[in-house]
Amino acid sequence: MLRSVHRTTSAARIAQLAKRYSSYASSVFPDEPSVPQLKTEVPGPIGTQLNTNLGDVFDNRAAYFVTDYYNSIGNYISDADGNKLLDVYMQIASIGLGYNNPALKQVAKSDEMTTALINRPALACFPGVDYQKVLEDGILKAAPPGMTKVWTATTGSDANETAFKAAFMLQAARDRGSRDFNQQELISVMNNEAPGASEKCILSFDKAFHGRLFGSLSTTRSKAIHKLDIPAFPWPKAPFPALKYPLKDFENENKQEENRCLEQLEDIIVGKGKGNIAALIVEPVQSEGGDNHASASFFQGVRDITLKHNIFMIVDEVQTGVAATGKFWAHEHWNLSTPPDMVTFSKKFQAAGFYFRDPELQPRQAYRQFNTWCGDPSKALIARTIVQEIEANNLVAATASVGDYLFNNLSSLFEKYPGHASNIRGQNMGTFIAWDSPNADHRAKFLLACRAKGVNIGGCGEAAIRLRPSLAFNESHADVLCGIIENVLGEM
Amino acid sequence: MLRSVHRTTSAARIAQLAKRYSSYASSVFPDEPSVPQLKTEVPGPIGTQLNTNLGDVFDNRAAYFVTDYYNSIGNYISDADGNKLLDVYMQIASIGLGYNNPALKQVAKSDEMTTALINRPALACFPGVDYQKVLEDGILKAAPPGMTKVWTATTGSDANETAFKAAFMLQAARDRGSRDFNQQELISVMNNEAPGASEKCILSFDKAFHGRLFGSLSTTRSKAIHKLDIPAFPWPKAPFPALKYPLKDFENENKQEENRCLEQLEDIIVGKGKGNIAALIVEPVQSEGGDNHASASFFQGVRDITLKHNIFMIVDEVQTGVAATGKFWAHEHWNLSTPPDMVTFSKKFQAAGFYFRDPELQPRQAYRQFNTWCGDPSKALIARTIVQEIEANNLVAATASVGDYLFNNLSSLFEKYPGHASNIRGQNMGTFIAWDSPNADHRAKFLLACRAKGVNIGGCGEAAIRLRPSLAFNESHADVLCGIIENVLGEM
Repeated sequence: MLRSVHRTTSAARIAQLAKRYSSYASSVFPDEPSVPQLKTEVPGPIGTQLNTNLGDVFDNRAAYFVTDYYNSIGNYISDADGNKLLDVYMQIASIGLGYNNPALKQVAKSDEMTTALINRPALACFPGVDYQKVLEDGILKAAPPGMTKVWTATTGSDANETAFKAAFMLQAARDRGSRDFNQQELISVMNNEAPGASEKCILSFDKAFHGRLFGSLSTTRSKAIHKLDIPAFPWPKAPFPALKYPLKDFENENKQEENRCLEQLEDIIVGKGKGNIAALIVEPVQSEGGDNHASASFFQGVRDITLKHNIFMIVDEVQTGVAATGKFWAHEHWNLSTPPDMVTFSKKFQAAGFYFRDPELQPRQAYRQFNTWCGDPSKALIARTIVQEIEANNLVAATASVGDYLFNNLSSLFEKYPGHASNIRGQNMGTFIAWDSPNADHRAKFLLACRAKGVNIGGCGEAAIRLRPSLAFNESHADVLCGIIENVLGEM
Repeated sequence: MLRSVHRTTSAARIAQLAKRYSSYASSVFPDEPSVPQLKTEVPGPIGTQLNTNLGDVFDNRAAYFVTDYYNSIGNYISDADGNKLLDVYMQIASIGLGYNNPALKQVAKSDEMTTALINRPALACFPGVDYQKVLEDGILKAAPPGMTKVWTATTGSDANETAFKAAFMLQAARDRGSRDFNQQELISVMNNEAPGASEKCILSFDKAFHGRLFGSLSTTRSKAIHKLDIPAFPWPKAPFPALKYPLKDFENENKQEENRCLEQLEDIIVGKGKGNIAALIVEPVQSEGGDNHASASFFQGVRDITLKHNIFMIVDEVQTGVAATGKFWAHEHWNLSTPPDMVTFSKKFQAAGFYFRDPELQPRQAYRQFNTWCGDPSKALIARTIVQEIEANNLVAATASVGDYLFNNLSSLFEKYPGHASNIRGQNMGTFIAWDSPNADHRAKFLLACRAKGVNIGGCGEAAIRLRPSLAFNESHADVLCGIIENVLGEM
């Protein structure tokens, strides 16, 4: 259950563990460069040509650069021209153990993996003899407190959507009581009409991101470009606190803002959403929306409101999960009096799905929460190795520690460039750190300048810059990163 | 482009090729059993215990039996107790080349696969140096006539939903003309309201199945249990022809039924759906809905109507695609005057996504058709091997031939048991064959009796039985299958 490592670790113990395990990258990636290695511009001529060719068959307008995954290693991503960049974006927060991690290589070459890959099962109909054990030794070993069951899916979007379906089905079952489906429901649903098709909804927060399929996109409120021209369900949104940073300097103001948001949330629930909200979904840190934080007390308030009004609370840990915040799951920072009802995951875990607490969230009838694949055993094997590697190397504690080091160094650095980087956030949240550029243009220039000096970073929200390094990121990587950022800011 | 193999092959040539390549299973799976091997009941005691344990952590109420994928081979699936069953269901039509195919084993063990598995990229941002070539040598090599571009996804449901998004975005772009998004659109969409959120819809057919996420489920009309309690978009459905079988005996009646459906389709389009239908989605054979067929002329009629009214035509080949019908894509049977706009795929191809024809179906702005992973290179490698293996072994022609053999033998057999099996369908459609039991109870008994004698078969629709064997299924497998079916029917 990883409890000893990531749930109750004191600050002193974290520092001790971090020291002991600070050598993870150097022991696992002995050939990792110590600084970026640049031979050409990024992208260089080879990558540019490859990308032009790719555009003939595949939408490549979002491409940063064509990547040589064979020669990427640890925290360093290699482009097609052999440039090696320190990567603190890591495939949009999806590579946990660094590029070409040897433990993952080992599982990839195993007969277990081969069997999983070439005989992909319809898991709910023909589960493999070892699926339970693979789950128990991996995905379930990392289950958040209070959760013992999991539904496996394939992406963050469908992890969220299957969680929504579980919420809708259980709310309807409770409304229905002991009676079976009636004729009116059975007939109307085939026409996409009530009462068979639910008129309930999922509430999400302003600036949230929960995915891009039709249900998840209806809860996504990050940017217009994500949503334009796509039909959406008329589901409500509540305000998310717009806090001032650093949090410790604005405690009173922020408390008021959070209270305002909680009040509005409850107003929506008892007002226009009355009786109609099946579940609420929330990110521990609104990531795509700009790395917007809120306090543990805000989330406790959300939990209290959902319990009071019988609304399921779904915590979307697709981006925050798997150790990056210095806890295995970011919502562990909240110490909720009652755990959430469902926790969704994907990205850094490679496997996707949701954990749940109430066994009734598994629908009473078979074939309701169902699809052909219901997950992917090959991804469950990768997730198992990720859990084992995090546990064996205390990477939760190590990430908490290097995050503190990085936060402090960046904070000092940004004090020298007050017009260029503000609102640093993510203190005591591992390496889940972000700050604001003065505007989107400035950010674009900053990111390109970093790339030109060998660091790959991503943005989020209107003008934020987010760090999403791997769990193999240590103090020496932090030093390289801060050095280049200082260099870039100095020139801007 | 596989054209020589699967597009213009004469009947005589098919027979010749089939003979030449009938040895695929025996050469590739020398250890495949020649008949089912039963040691215990199915499921046996070991499998029953494993399934009970699995139920503690994972929804297993749909489980047929716990499967030993290590010991499954070719067309034979092994359960946990060592029983080996002839499998003509194949993970709900998802295993194309048989269990533990050596060509797939080879690619699974390759360094290419290891790199793809352990460094899963955000494909649209950081495409790998070899992604274009992997696509061109695999997924694109099998592209339907007229299609040169592909969007890669992860499942059938999201293949369809991303195709829907492409349709909505291009219809809106055309309505908008040269102007950019306006303020009203940019603001309203963040509240899930028109005009930013589209009020257009996707039309589907009665009894269709297109997936289980919120957009795809709104087009699914197969069974109430798939849809109950889940919110749905108010999208229209059109009638799908209810044909009489065998098709050749009811040509006139069926033609009238198809004309009735085409007229109603156009009535919906010019009536309540006027100007509001972005696309129509249709399966070549309605598979989950009961293996409902329609003629090439019906589909040509659908194509004509969609062209006349500027509605995109999406052909859902998730279940019908990849050679099972004796063409690589089932819609090739139609010889349409204009190809469909999009063709979606998943299942037997392992990789998922959609092909498209008009380059404008790639949205004008980046990050609109976008998500973290945008597919999975490890699945693209599997798909590449599947294409190569189909081509090298002429499995399209072989499947056409064994399908004819199987259809004829089953037809003769069912004549002896008229009260037990009727409406055999799928003539000249490879092994994509189905028939009706008199009712659902009878079907359940039939399927269990087959399992008890060593054949794994699936149902679909209300009382249909569908065959979905692998492409390595040959005449000797057909003989075993027919022998057991006759045995079961004789005892019923």
